[in-house]
Amino acid sequence: MGIRLGDNQYGKAEVRLVHIDRGTDVHRIKDISVTSQLRGDFDAVHVEGDNANCVPTDTQKNTVYALAKENNGVGAIEDFALLLARHFVDEHDCVEGARQEIEEYGWDRIDTADGPHDHSFVRRGGETRTTVVTKDGDQEWVVSGLDGLTVLKSTGSEFHGYPKTKYTTLKETTDRILATDVTARWRYVGTDGIAWDKAYASVRAILLETFATTHSLALQQTLYAMGTAVLEAHPEIAEVKFSMPNNHHFLVDLSPFGLDNPNEVFFAADRPYGKIEATVERDDAPDAGRAWETVPGFV
Amino acid sequence: MGIRLGDNQYGKAEVRLVHIDRGTDVHRIKDISVTSQLRGDFDAVHVEGDNANCVPTDTQKNTVYALAKENNGVGAIEDFALLLARHFVDEHDCVEGARQEIEEYGWDRIDTADGPHDHSFVRRGGETRTTVVTKDGDQEWVVSGLDGLTVLKSTGSEFHGYPKTKYTTLKETTDRILATDVTARWRYVGTDGIAWDKAYASVRAILLETFATTHSLALQQTLYAMGTAVLEAHPEIAEVKFSMPNNHHFLVDLSPFGLDNPNEVFFAADRPYGKIEATVERDDAPDAGRAWETVPGFV
Amino acid sequence: MGIRLGDNQYGKAEVRLVHIDRGTDVHRIKDISVTSQLRGDFDAVHVEGDNANCVPTDTQKNTVYALAKENNGVGAIEDFALLLARHFVDEHDCVEGARQEIEEYGWDRIDTADGPHDHSFVRRGGETRTTVVTKDGDQEWVVSGLDGLTVLKSTGSEFHGYPKTKYTTLKETTDRILATDVTARWRYVGTDGIAWDKAYASVRAILLETFATTHSLALQQTLYAMGTAVLEAHPEIAEVKFSMPNNHHFLVDLSPFGLDNPNEVFFAADRPYGKIEATVERDDAPDAGRAWETVPGFV
Amino acid sequence: MGIRLGDNQYGKAEVRLVHIDRGTDVHRIKDISVTSQLRGDFDAVHVEGDNANCVPTDTQKNTVYALAKENNGVGAIEDFALLLARHFVDEHDCVEGARQEIEEYGWDRIDTADGPHDHSFVRRGGETRTTVVTKDGDQEWVVSGLDGLTVLKSTGSEFHGYPKTKYTTLKETTDRILATDVTARWRYVGTDGIAWDKAYASVRAILLETFATTHSLALQQTLYAMGTAVLEAHPEIAEVKFSMPNNHHFLVDLSPFGLDNPNEVFFAADRPYGKIEATVERDDAPDAGRAWETVPGFV
Repeated sequence: MGIRLGDNQYGKAEVRLVHIDRGTDVHRIKDISVTSQLRGDFDAVHVEGDNANCVPTDTQKNTVYALAKENNGVGAIEDFALLLARHFVDEHDCVEGARQEIEEYGWDRIDTADGPHDHSFVRRGGETRTTVVTKDGDQEWVVSGLDGLTVLKSTGSEFHGYPKTKYTTLKETTDRILATDVTARWRYVGTDGIAWDKAYASVRAILLETFATTHSLALQQTLYAMGTAVLEAHPEIAEVKFSMPNNHHFLVDLSPFGLDNPNEVFFAADRPYGKIEATVERDDAPDAGRAWETVPGFV
Repeated sequence: MGIRLGDNQYGKAEVRLVHIDRGTDVHRIKDISVTSQLRGDFDAVHVEGDNANCVPTDTQKNTVYALAKENNGVGAIEDFALLLARHFVDEHDCVEGARQEIEEYGWDRIDTADGPHDHSFVRRGGETRTTVVTKDGDQEWVVSGLDGLTVLKSTGSEFHGYPKTKYTTLKETTDRILATDVTARWRYVGTDGIAWDKAYASVRAILLETFATTHSLALQQTLYAMGTAVLEAHPEIAEVKFSMPNNHHFLVDLSPFGLDNPNEVFFAADRPYGKIEATVERDDAPDAGRAWETVPGFV
Repeated sequence: MGIRLGDNQYGKAEVRLVHIDRGTDVHRIKDISVTSQLRGDFDAVHVEGDNANCVPTDTQKNTVYALAKENNGVGAIEDFALLLARHFVDEHDCVEGARQEIEEYGWDRIDTADGPHDHSFVRRGGETRTTVVTKDGDQEWVVSGLDGLTVLKSTGSEFHGYPKTKYTTLKETTDRILATDVTARWRYVGTDGIAWDKAYASVRAILLETFATTHSLALQQTLYAMGTAVLEAHPEIAEVKFSMPNNHHFLVDLSPFGLDNPNEVFFAADRPYGKIEATVERDDAPDAGRAWETVPGFV
Repeated sequence: MGIRLGDNQYGKAEVRLVHIDRGTDVHRIKDISVTSQLRGDFDAVHVEGDNANCVPTDTQKNTVYALAKENNGVGAIEDFALLLARHFVDEHDCVEGARQEIEEYGWDRIDTADGPHDHSFVRRGGETRTTVVTKDGDQEWVVSGLDGLTVLKSTGSEFHGYPKTKYTTLKETTDRILATDVTARWRYVGTDGIAWDKAYASVRAILLETFATTHSLALQQTLYAMGTAVLEAHPEIAEVKFSMPNNHHFLVDLSPFGLDNPNEVFFAADRPYGKIEATVERDDAPDAGRAWETVPGFV
């Protein structure tokens, strides 16, 4: 029997970078968190503690900051992640691939009596924009997404027709609250000629509008409709994956107090919650390659 | 020597309530978390485990839900907290006072091709609106506020002229990022005739605009300017208290890489952070009474 | 009408310090988070942005690290907080008082085949030890405590005899799970001659044993018994304050599945939870002075 | 072009269950969180909102509670997850597979003057024990693990010999603090005849002892040694995966204050942190099949 190193990657996580574009008095802000991970010929460091191939995570952090300056800013996070991935693979013979993940936090200009302020901002809150660029030798994949887009429908949602078993107690309903936190990841085909910021804004708007306008018979159906709408509008996207909790809102039983409750007063529960995960994909999509690859068991 | 019961209060915390106003097809949503606490003659339950005066926390929870229905909704959180406080003190001889704290989470309508949707919403993110109503017999106080309003100025902030000691290493600066999460609490004078929702919107706007337009020599100065602006515009407010971290953004030293960094690339640090807390008050404000009272040591 | 500065304090929060005592090969570790806050003559910095009296929060951070070295380590957190408070008040004319708060995280030695390891440790988890030293001119107060001591009794807890109202639905019980996270704060009388570490260990043991051995008729009663036991054993402690959630464990109704459930299978709920807060004090305790003082509204 | 459903699963997440074994007066407690997910023929619910094959997540939750009773308790979490997975696949034609994930939280008996208490417990804190059982038709896999085992060495750790580039500023060191939170997942071969509780205790002890006694030249090397030690001792384990942050402890520069700092006073940083992930595996391990499978992009 022998023991060996399997899948592995390492790097620096959550490098918090704020870039201020001071090109004019009207500043622009970019606020991101970069997690850089490298893949390659790293047997020696694991087996023997020989660091000759181990580009320090500290160097990866420095590189993130330096390239933000050399690049005159971050730009679209997809472009910045590609820049980083290419840099690491090109610069180091021992680095065969890279996974560069970026989260972006939104800011709005503060409104004042004189209009939007030049250099004062307020955090937008709400969802986070994300991207994961994976590079393996010459191949590159871009998976972008968003986290924490919390939505709710106060009607237009039913749930019935499901199998009944000895452990079923749920009542069928033709009118319930449907609420979820949308986490979505979509894989682009190719890396060139894509208007990342415009695509992001469009996908986000489609997700919201489809959630709103779909009369729901199940959260799975809503999810599938959201994915389908994105794919129909965006030929440059091959597949969309979702992880969406069903954030339960239970109608409070007010009958002990002599009150009816026609879908007005709800208890918003924390746990447990439904957890719906699915992929919506083109049947002619190019192979995903290593686009979704991690060390299994971890994200 | 004797041992006795001192300050005390008890209740149900974080009662999560979502109310849907279905009066028309254009639904309205109210999403709150209520923490109800009662004060009164509770020696027996503490000393002997005699619950004759102990209105169960479960009953307090039920009351929150029932009154939301009987009241035809929540309305302004200040009004709902007053309603709850008055109910508990009026209904129970043993209950002499109450502290009712409410947090409110904002939702926006989802935009669709046909305009804002009737019954689909997206969480606004960002700050939380709060109120604490304290009632002691016939006396009532309302302290409202907001949590987590995160703001940043990319210039227009200096810091210098401070004392230098043997433990000083900080360099003086005439241009730094100033960033904070505003937590504010303001005490209203009286409880009648105040347009709570309008006042909240106005205070929030003043806090943002003052942060934006104040050239800052210290975060303390910005804080004081923000409080002063609120008091000048709102005679119904007696005092404003702030707890504001100084969220440090450190300029990254890029000189080892042959790069200058003229206030462009920053590291956004987590800990430690500055912590600035202060009250701005009218010198003729009526006494605060028990408005700010808690069991000391806890919030 | 005039506007003025009220209660205020400022400083550096959550200064994370790990000290290794390398006096012998058997290392000792101390892992703390210090929040330093100063009080004094700070009108000018608030009103005018004049920093002449504003000892930077960065200097406060440096002082924490430097004094840990000059003091040959941290020692009991109460002693270190007193050292810091005295330093700040003694060194700076403009500083009239200080509030120094410290949290301590516990570590155990890792067990190996050769016994406890000299320099390898595992985080103990569980509760955090805390202290707050407040200094005002020559006066000093020490309030110590613990956070997050989570305990549960699977029987020996009843709840009945409470008032019934139109909003009561809770059933009386003579056997329920009682579970809470103990947050406790106790005020010492004086600052000299107290064996802080020994007192902490004793109070913690008393809190646990009293929780375990008290047959409970209400969480309030258990709380009061815990406080009383501490005061009876510790004449150097004047009062104990508690904030204790009632972490509800609801018996699952298995009758729809033809199963009884004699207090065996429970749902552990998150929210809402009961919230019980009270002080247990000596009737001849010296006045608390500013021991518990914060800027009201914030902890 | 067509659009279709890809990888998917759904269920109820974080079903919090506390089981009390009251077989004798010496109660035993089991405290778990179950996330149940099903896989199978779910096209219709996604595409058409037809729930005929959609076993409600509510039913999955009920099943968790009911089987805990029917099974006379939870037992080892691996056995309970297998019981659940087999139940769901056996009971429902449309369910072809299941992923059942369980976290377990540890409790200790409270020590009293009369010895360990019969029915009063204190949360152990520290790490969480986990398992994921995956079933696909007749095939079954068990992956167990732990989260949040936080360890630190105050010496016996070096880092040097790494590549130097234009973005390198890190200094080489022969003595640093090494600290990490161990997240580990190990795959068992087969499901029969394994003493799950004993194996867990052994793996945990080996991880701790190997961390302690390995003189470290890189965190990767320590990780690999930990995985190797587990595989050498446990023939029933095919592979171990780790995700381990490098929790940086930076030596504080005290030279501005005229103080040296011979590895005594450290700043414990939050972000960024190193992130080291790797698999240690037998070269003759049976294929992992779907043991590690999730919907890619999510855990």
